[in-house]
Amino acid sequence: MTVDPRFYAPLGALTLGQVAELTGAVLDGESDLPVTGIASAANAQKGDLAFLDGDGKTAPEISANAGIFIINEANRKYVPDSSSTLVVRFPRHAHAVAALSMYRPRHLEWTGEARISPDAQVHEGAIVSPGAVVGPGAVIGEGTWIGPNVSIGPGVQIGRHCQIGANASVFCALVGDHVTLLAGARIGETGFGVLAAPDGQRDAPHFGRVILQDHVTIGANTCIDRGVFEDTILGERTKIDNLCQIAHNVVFGRSVVMAAFGGISGSVRVGNQSMLGGRVGIADHVEVGEGVSLAASSGLFRNVEDRETWGGTPAKPIRQWMREVAWLQKQANPKKNS
Amino acid sequence: MTVDPRFYAPLGALTLGQVAELTGAVLDGESDLPVTGIASAANAQKGDLAFLDGDGKTAPEISANAGIFIINEANRKYVPDSSSTLVVRFPRHAHAVAALSMYRPRHLEWTGEARISPDAQVHEGAIVSPGAVVGPGAVIGEGTWIGPNVSIGPGVQIGRHCQIGANASVFCALVGDHVTLLAGARIGETGFGVLAAPDGQRDAPHFGRVILQDHVTIGANTCIDRGVFEDTILGERTKIDNLCQIAHNVVFGRSVVMAAFGGISGSVRVGNQSMLGGRVGIADHVEVGEGVSLAASSGLFRNVEDRETWGGTPAKPIRQWMREVAWLQKQANPKKNS
Amino acid sequence: MTVDPRFYAPLGALTLGQVAELTGAVLDGESDLPVTGIASAANAQKGDLAFLDGDGKTAPEISANAGIFIINEANRKYVPDSSSTLVVRFPRHAHAVAALSMYRPRHLEWTGEARISPDAQVHEGAIVSPGAVVGPGAVIGEGTWIGPNVSIGPGVQIGRHCQIGANASVFCALVGDHVTLLAGARIGETGFGVLAAPDGQRDAPHFGRVILQDHVTIGANTCIDRGVFEDTILGERTKIDNLCQIAHNVVFGRSVVMAAFGGISGSVRVGNQSMLGGRVGIADHVEVGEGVSLAASSGLFRNVEDRETWGGTPAKPIRQWMREVAWLQKQANPKKNS
Repeated sequence: MTVDPRFYAPLGALTLGQVAELTGAVLDGESDLPVTGIASAANAQKGDLAFLDGDGKTAPEISANAGIFIINEANRKYVPDSSSTLVVRFPRHAHAVAALSMYRPRHLEWTGEARISPDAQVHEGAIVSPGAVVGPGAVIGEGTWIGPNVSIGPGVQIGRHCQIGANASVFCALVGDHVTLLAGARIGETGFGVLAAPDGQRDAPHFGRVILQDHVTIGANTCIDRGVFEDTILGERTKIDNLCQIAHNVVFGRSVVMAAFGGISGSVRVGNQSMLGGRVGIADHVEVGEGVSLAASSGLFRNVEDRETWGGTPAKPIRQWMREVAWLQKQANPKKNS
Repeated sequence: MTVDPRFYAPLGALTLGQVAELTGAVLDGESDLPVTGIASAANAQKGDLAFLDGDGKTAPEISANAGIFIINEANRKYVPDSSSTLVVRFPRHAHAVAALSMYRPRHLEWTGEARISPDAQVHEGAIVSPGAVVGPGAVIGEGTWIGPNVSIGPGVQIGRHCQIGANASVFCALVGDHVTLLAGARIGETGFGVLAAPDGQRDAPHFGRVILQDHVTIGANTCIDRGVFEDTILGERTKIDNLCQIAHNVVFGRSVVMAAFGGISGSVRVGNQSMLGGRVGIADHVEVGEGVSLAASSGLFRNVEDRETWGGTPAKPIRQWMREVAWLQKQANPKKNS
Repeated sequence: MTVDPRFYAPLGALTLGQVAELTGAVLDGESDLPVTGIASAANAQKGDLAFLDGDGKTAPEISANAGIFIINEANRKYVPDSSSTLVVRFPRHAHAVAALSMYRPRHLEWTGEARISPDAQVHEGAIVSPGAVVGPGAVIGEGTWIGPNVSIGPGVQIGRHCQIGANASVFCALVGDHVTLLAGARIGETGFGVLAAPDGQRDAPHFGRVILQDHVTIGANTCIDRGVFEDTILGERTKIDNLCQIAHNVVFGRSVVMAAFGGISGSVRVGNQSMLGGRVGIADHVEVGEGVSLAASSGLFRNVEDRETWGGTPAKPIRQWMREVAWLQKQANPKKNS
């Protein structure tokens, strides 16, 4: 994958030997092999450093082009023979250490007194309200309104005719045209990932982005996390209500509608024109087809085909769920329902 | 209805012919009839432009004083004979186009460097903390504390002895005395409404307000959306916990208590002294009486009479719900419970 | 208990007679007895003013050292004989009136134009981003990054190498080293407590703190309320996802993990290394052991022993819950499952 230099300053490639030294790993490979990037195992390309973690009981998805792995002993069996490997006890932590030696998140180096960075490009036809802050390298398009006390991070690109509501924040994101963020929306924060490290659990660093396509609307105080290595993407005209949570690496198609308190776990896919009722939750890696409806309060743990309607927790086809609700009511209340 | 000019600048009346031209509608009526306002069909008065949308299978509520309608063919049968009509394929979208030609939301024209607008009236006995922003036409009463990095929109009225917590935002709202908003509360954002337009789905513009009566308290990061045409209203001494969502046009009575993660859909009514437990959800247009209790995690889809206690999803009288829970447990675990 | 003077300015002790006068209470004790502090009945020490409220049907927890009580008639029977008492109709309200005469919350007196108070101590190796506000008496440690438009309240202590995300707010809190708050996190707001007063319901004032130990991470738009009299405490390396709610007086151990939309009611205890799935809710005063797992969407109303796994609403041991789900599905859908 390519880490976007607008959000993560490249600090230069490492050699395999340098990674071994940084992480205390046992090296099986050529010490001077260049490590030029970072990625998940599923998407790694030549030169990318990937990792395999966990107890080794499940075969991981591995890209055919992946060639450099940080692993623990339990996962050695999954690594292709031609690969270079670095063996450590906590592979994901070691990968994070190496990654942060190769890329520096720019938002943490943002200093100075200027509310609007002299290195930002704000179109003369854009409005930046009092109290709003725009970081270096950010670009704000024509006709866009940035509300009061908004925070726009370094390198963020915001298109034309957008409305960024009061006190919202946008980091590590590419935002199209006619996009509306209501007040307090949180775009591009680090997702929730806890990794094992020698001294206990730590946060997994994130190197991806959020991409909001044209005409997307995000509700007040809703959170859209950026991807770990890939991007979190919402397609054109997708509309998200207040107080929703969309985790890292989620991809929504076009014209999806999600009501308040929707909670979408990592790497979920939702197809075009699907409708998610209030308080819907979807477990990680679940795939939802096009034109699907999920009833309010559904808790979905399985994939759903195009144009189906599901409800309940755990969610199932809506008729089956309604049958269960009605049957239970009848059985448990015999007099009332006889 | 009357659109409040403090929040929406009136741009002048249109004629029926002008509306037809703006929206591409087929006109059945006098071209020079003045269109002097906008409203929902249920509340339209003489001169107001209303709309009827949808597939025409359900009879809409229509005010006896309504006389000008934007409709699609499917709804023609519901329009009183004496009315003027404008027929288009996407009536709600056409209505929005006309409405935005008659009223301009003031918060999007807020410019300048001044944190506290010279056109705001801040009482000398009020405190505006560092970083707080107060828009033109806003009024802040005696003894009120505006926290750091708060955003107060144009025209907002805040009474005496209020506390507006850090990083909160208040737009299109009238706030009484002794009102407390905790940090990050979002008052008066546009509600969630998706309308069909020729090029795909769009956000429905909102022209109403939020009204918070005396002694109301709103929790941290809670969102109270403003009404579409009418107002969203919380009665005296109503207390709302953190991270709740109250949608457009909701009306709460006096001394209602709602715990965290409560989610109230559009146009719901809740009577005085009712108590809503944590994570309660209520579907749109549901009416809840006075002194009602809803157990934590209830999902309510039906009206509830005064002083009843309900629970479960879908919610039902609490004894019935508890009977079902107990019966299921006993049946499914025969050994343990025999 | 000791009220932390960094957050609540001590206004001096009162005498029992003065408290009686302030609250209109009927005094049974020596009028010139000094009242030197405030506390809950469960934790009161010599000189502390405590209260007993409610209908008197449940015996309250009372500290052996408590000696001064504001009570109503219904609770007189629970007060030790040697105590001084003040009898009123609304004891919790009277206690609040007295408490606010003894301690003044400092955040409400924060004035001036300076974004960074001249009375704050910001380490030269810390970064305070544009738009961030730091109150008097606040301390920011070496290597800590304060994001744009953040609000740090008076007296707040933040350690070394912390990251405080954009538009977050921190009041009445002690924050350790290597703590991360994502954007919009709300630390140290008043918790949700509604008390009966002569003129109707009011908010209970809070005099406690939030304590976040080293390496704690708090997600975007998550709220951690401060304690009423005691503290709300999150132990080392505890990791909280976005949009969670943790109420007053909650204590989490070390390395707890809680996913999005978790809602923890007042005074709950959660032991080390427990894992709470998405949308878990826990009722007030429930105690959860170490190494416990709660499945996503659980609603927990009972204590859970160490290392158990529970699910469902109301939550029960996971196998029992799954048996019920499977049994119901089979019974209600006989053809499909036969």
